[in-house]
Amino acid sequence: MLAATALNSQLIGQVNSRWKLLTPALVLDFDALERNIATMASWAMDGQHNLRPHGKSHKSPHIAKLQSQAGAVGLCCASLREAEVMAAEGIEGLLITTPLAPDKAPLIANLVHAGADISVVVDHVDLVAAYGAAAEQAGVVLSVFVDLDVGLGRTGTPSARVAVELAGLINGHPALQYAGVQGYMGHLQHVDDHAQRRERLGRDSRDLQNIVDALVKANLPPDIITGGGTGTHRLDGEYGTIGEFQVGSYLFLDVQYLTVQQGKLGEQPYEPSLFIQTSVVNINHSDYAVTDAGLKSFATDGPPPLIVQGAPKGATYRYMGDEHGAIGFKGSNDIMALGDKVECLVPHCDPNVNLFDYYHVVRGDTLVDIWPVAARGNS
Amino acid sequence: MLAATALNSQLIGQVNSRWKLLTPALVLDFDALERNIATMASWAMDGQHNLRPHGKSHKSPHIAKLQSQAGAVGLCCASLREAEVMAAEGIEGLLITTPLAPDKAPLIANLVHAGADISVVVDHVDLVAAYGAAAEQAGVVLSVFVDLDVGLGRTGTPSARVAVELAGLINGHPALQYAGVQGYMGHLQHVDDHAQRRERLGRDSRDLQNIVDALVKANLPPDIITGGGTGTHRLDGEYGTIGEFQVGSYLFLDVQYLTVQQGKLGEQPYEPSLFIQTSVVNINHSDYAVTDAGLKSFATDGPPPLIVQGAPKGATYRYMGDEHGAIGFKGSNDIMALGDKVECLVPHCDPNVNLFDYYHVVRGDTLVDIWPVAARGNS
Repeated sequence: MLAATALNSQLIGQVNSRWKLLTPALVLDFDALERNIATMASWAMDGQHNLRPHGKSHKSPHIAKLQSQAGAVGLCCASLREAEVMAAEGIEGLLITTPLAPDKAPLIANLVHAGADISVVVDHVDLVAAYGAAAEQAGVVLSVFVDLDVGLGRTGTPSARVAVELAGLINGHPALQYAGVQGYMGHLQHVDDHAQRRERLGRDSRDLQNIVDALVKANLPPDIITGGGTGTHRLDGEYGTIGEFQVGSYLFLDVQYLTVQQGKLGEQPYEPSLFIQTSVVNINHSDYAVTDAGLKSFATDGPPPLIVQGAPKGATYRYMGDEHGAIGFKGSNDIMALGDKVECLVPHCDPNVNLFDYYHVVRGDTLVDIWPVAARGNS
Repeated sequence: MLAATALNSQLIGQVNSRWKLLTPALVLDFDALERNIATMASWAMDGQHNLRPHGKSHKSPHIAKLQSQAGAVGLCCASLREAEVMAAEGIEGLLITTPLAPDKAPLIANLVHAGADISVVVDHVDLVAAYGAAAEQAGVVLSVFVDLDVGLGRTGTPSARVAVELAGLINGHPALQYAGVQGYMGHLQHVDDHAQRRERLGRDSRDLQNIVDALVKANLPPDIITGGGTGTHRLDGEYGTIGEFQVGSYLFLDVQYLTVQQGKLGEQPYEPSLFIQTSVVNINHSDYAVTDAGLKSFATDGPPPLIVQGAPKGATYRYMGDEHGAIGFKGSNDIMALGDKVECLVPHCDPNVNLFDYYHVVRGDTLVDIWPVAARGNS
């Protein structure tokens, strides 16, 4: 079975090869990626924060290693599969940030037994029991965080009382090690207005601090308080409760994050590095050209793709079914030619990466490498 | 690298194994799939229609072979990659139904040279030239259809005049063979109301017939008129212009197609066969449970997933980010337990299949096989 990588791999190193890719293709600007990684690492170093970036954004051991080289203390994963793939590539300090279905507990314990460095989170007594039994069975000690709900309403313990109860259960279990707490404020990452984000973060951070205080009072002080994201990390850093940051989207940005103000009004320390490249396949209409990238190439939960290169200024992108898009413009159909390459900023980076098998890594106009989206998929 | 198949493959043949899958998982009801294939084959046989089902829905050589065994004359593909994968598995009569970017022409010609049985479509003189040059270079004769725009406004020739021009160019080119025309009415597949669909189909079918008449008059009668889809095939069959049907979604149905009336009011000859199975991972809320299937497990361009099994009657599904969903219900959180398995009908089958690497094929409650979504991905 031939995959797209085989067809494009011969282009690596050729001048202008970025524009000879078979499309649709996921294109990663290596220079911009490196700048984003360095900027985040520098922020963390300045504030003495730890970074445990989230692998669910990139699903790539290549990128995990770049983050590790820049000083990250580990890598977050959102699924068993991501943890498996990253562990197989030697990535350490893995933290699965979502409570898993209890039937996955034995598989986690077996991975740890095989040498993987994986921690997990829990938010219910039944899951503590499942991990405890699995770890005992596998003959390992499993590192466990208590997942706290600090406003997102998704996973996490519903109160300080339950958090203390779970921390105590973990602490008292011979096959479990109490590692700390997780307080991820996913609901605040995309609050566009900086002042409003600061106000809401202050409120939810006080809730988080109150739970931490209750744990300290119960003689269960968390070693690590992990959380944060691209949208809030700088405010979290100022607030001071969170000590370890699960930032992910800063690597790529996307249309959604472009509107989130970082730091001072309008300041944005990170830059877009991830694009979908598509080709024009039909020019028979007077005010739009049809492309080969549709619902199977873009994450459709967010805003439409933003055209950044290859189309007339002001042109817009819309979906035309599973395999097609349309570039709308004012004027005649002489504007674009069959085969023209157009690059769009991805609407929402995490699910968009998940649609592709490969990153086409470029520096300027040259394809320099192809990296698999190795942890793509489910379970 | 361990993939989900390795973990679930040991369950094949075990009683009740459908409910032991690691989730999120794409589940295919083999009995329902077989009934759908048989029903469509029987309709085609009764009306002496040919079937060239669309592989973009399933991307699976396993399913392509089942369709072939039921009498299909070939298989449609939406991409170079799909054609490559299907050809490598020995599937014949492949038709790539979308005009490709011209830089893919040499790859198509090379596949034909290597023995693949692939036809293509064109809707522009430049693409005829690209295919002609590539076929000449590869020393093959490439079979080419003229793609007609009969109301969809996506690809296809804009007029009968251009259709005649392209058919003449193909017919006169030594390395190309004029195979017929394609008139796909994608814009009518989801017109829910049967009477309205019939009226609009009548209008666009007359346009198609007029182009065919112009080709006949120009001494370029199309051997094959290919088109149709799950939503219109029965009306197309009555109308009589289209002779070869590119039906795809009938295999699975989905939430979108459930509302499309087939034949008499409310009659639906096909049945849902494709589901996403997810597990409950959080029960800390009073009126919803959180699951492990979110934006990375569902096609989000359509309606929300429809819960069919495993949750209280009347429960609804909503997305809670990349990896999570929420099952909303009235009542207390005693209704669901951690690890409960819930199955949802997919919102839109084609892009939803594309998110997964494997079909988990079940008969009743037993996992009987695991099939790769072999042509998943892009290019």
